[in-house]
Amino acid sequence: MKAKIIITPKKAVVDPQGKTVQVALAHMGYTGVQAVHVGKYIEIELAAGDREAARQSIDAACHKFLSNPVIEDYHLEIE
Amino acid sequence: MKAKIIITPKKAVVDPQGKTVQVALAHMGYTGVQAVHVGKYIEIELAAGDREAARQSIDAACHKFLSNPVIEDYHLEIE
Repeated sequence: MKAKIIITPKKAVVDPQGKTVQVALAHMGYTGVQAVHVGKYIEIELAAGDREAARQSIDAACHKFLSNPVIEDYHLEIE
Repeated sequence: MKAKIIITPKKAVVDPQGKTVQVALAHMGYTGVQAVHVGKYIEIELAAGDREAARQSIDAACHKFLSNPVIEDYHLEIE
């Protein structure tokens, strides 16, 4: 079982890393780039077990520990 | 149109950040965690246009600039 977590800065938060990538892409000739957001990706390999329990446990970990809910959003997927 | 890129360290490459998260999760009482991989997530908002051309252009950017193909794999999705 795998948990895939995508953590992105909230839209209202300044994202200097994304801005840097956007400017760099423009300088390299990639046109049509309107915005870039840079976040984190975490993949957790879990022992087989109850899917719903795993989701709740990892969701709690995301909230408490893996993301900063003040400035970041996260999206969790169990597969 | 949005390009979503997930960049992860290759399996053969040491992933100290993932290892740190794994140990921290174990210390916090999350059992059953077998491995953790930490990577980057990049979301690029593109002007509407030819989907296939956008894929090729962003794929080239991933290879040349956004990821380090020596130590990282990337997965690109256009939606």
